[in-house]
Amino acid sequence: MRAAIDRLELPNPAWASVDNVADLVSFGDATGWPVVLKTPRGGYDGKGVRVINSAEEAAGTEDWFQAMSPLLAEAKVEFTRELSALVARTPDGEARAWPVVHTIQVNGVCDEVIAPALDIPVEVAAAAEDAALRIAGELGVTGVLAVEMFETPGVGAGFLINELAMRPHNTGHWTQDGAVTSQFEQHLRAILNLPLGATDALAPVTVMKNFLGGGNQDLYSAFPLALASEPAAKVHCYGKSVRPGRKIGHVNLIGASTADVDSVRRRATMVANIIRDGRAAADEAPHTFEETA
Amino acid sequence: MRAAIDRLELPNPAWASVDNVADLVSFGDATGWPVVLKTPRGGYDGKGVRVINSAEEAAGTEDWFQAMSPLLAEAKVEFTRELSALVARTPDGEARAWPVVHTIQVNGVCDEVIAPALDIPVEVAAAAEDAALRIAGELGVTGVLAVEMFETPGVGAGFLINELAMRPHNTGHWTQDGAVTSQFEQHLRAILNLPLGATDALAPVTVMKNFLGGGNQDLYSAFPLALASEPAAKVHCYGKSVRPGRKIGHVNLIGASTADVDSVRRRATMVANIIRDGRAAADEAPHTFEETA
Repeated sequence: MRAAIDRLELPNPAWASVDNVADLVSFGDATGWPVVLKTPRGGYDGKGVRVINSAEEAAGTEDWFQAMSPLLAEAKVEFTRELSALVARTPDGEARAWPVVHTIQVNGVCDEVIAPALDIPVEVAAAAEDAALRIAGELGVTGVLAVEMFETPGVGAGFLINELAMRPHNTGHWTQDGAVTSQFEQHLRAILNLPLGATDALAPVTVMKNFLGGGNQDLYSAFPLALASEPAAKVHCYGKSVRPGRKIGHVNLIGASTADVDSVRRRATMVANIIRDGRAAADEAPHTFEETA
Repeated sequence: MRAAIDRLELPNPAWASVDNVADLVSFGDATGWPVVLKTPRGGYDGKGVRVINSAEEAAGTEDWFQAMSPLLAEAKVEFTRELSALVARTPDGEARAWPVVHTIQVNGVCDEVIAPALDIPVEVAAAAEDAALRIAGELGVTGVLAVEMFETPGVGAGFLINELAMRPHNTGHWTQDGAVTSQFEQHLRAILNLPLGATDALAPVTVMKNFLGGGNQDLYSAFPLALASEPAAKVHCYGKSVRPGRKIGHVNLIGASTADVDSVRRRATMVANIIRDGRAAADEAPHTFEETA
């Protein structure tokens, strides 16, 4: 992935393929510590990623090199926020981009998406969409592609590419209720080589809030309170068994004005917390946005 | 239905329960001809409805009275357009109304819906929503109820009630893509006695255009052209076999401004015509809005 992005002359952080601890130390000494070490396969939701703060810590990565080599070393990027550029492409080469969104990660897991990313310079948003469309085209992607990015004002194009995800993606769930065409409909159109649908946002702002497995085993028992608390919320449950920390659903909520974003985030979080913690927990204490921030 | 509406003191056209041709003639002579004669059960899409223009024509209704009696006679109302007020109600009595819409009937069949009804006086819209909510409450409706109305400026509240439909309804299909909560989601919430969802429109105007069975037997074959012709169109097919005149699907299309309504109608109609007539027919000649008006 990193080599392909370099080939396309799109903005990568400093990176190297490293075969052993010595390689990793050389890379860190050259680019500066900390360094992010990644397994090139099998990673997701922060799994397969370690932050190495020094040459001394690098010695402790011997187990990973034994299990899998080479690994990917990347400079740990200073950024103001994380972005995601979502596009879809058909085998015939038609491609469309949704507006670039702001993604908020907690413990390496996507927690919240604000769509579109507010106050993003138009040239940065355009360059980010263009980068995602170029990647989709040059790599011959069919279907939905998410390009996760670090926003880096003043550095390069204003962003560096973090990760590619060639599938309908958590950062695109907002499109189910916030865009003319959802990423799932678009993915089907794309793989069927049908014309793609419009990707316009339906509202000035849409917030997507994930909920992970928590204290409530019977999600449906919380629906009466959750739905009553916010009639505009759209609740999506995945039908998975509830395990702590597992992604089991998300809430989408649109706002009538970007000035409402704090309120929309708070209300989406409230609904997600009620479903996660159950009716009893919600009866005990009101949930505040700060608890989950 | 007519008796219940009278009991609620909501605006009915003149009506009577008629047992035979003599009753029908008395009603028509009293209220003026033409008269609309309806079977009280089993009617839909214009079936079970006859317009009787004179006492002489009334003699020809003997067959209906033989088959089914009493029948419903109604004054044929002069109106400017048809409206539909859609509401949903839970067993606990929570109820919500979507914006009142303008419905366009062709040969007694709903052909097109413009949501919300443009330029409707706010007091007429409010009274229409209120009437539908009262009917749902007083009759103890669970689920979605459509109240079809004639707009009658200067007469009564500005409308007369035409028909009640206690179900998700053709005049509510626009909500699938044009409202925060679709009538189908709302119907499920209602019958499960869950809190109801917000009924706000997502766009200044949404057009729903039905397509009936026509020359194209394989609807999917027309999708490449239909979807390419209008990327924002949402096509809903019912999976029914294609028979001439049978409702087999509809197209929803939102517009960014009420000033765009003519363009939105034309584009929704174009998509529906392509699917109805097939790719070959669409290649032969462009479809004009006038052809279907």
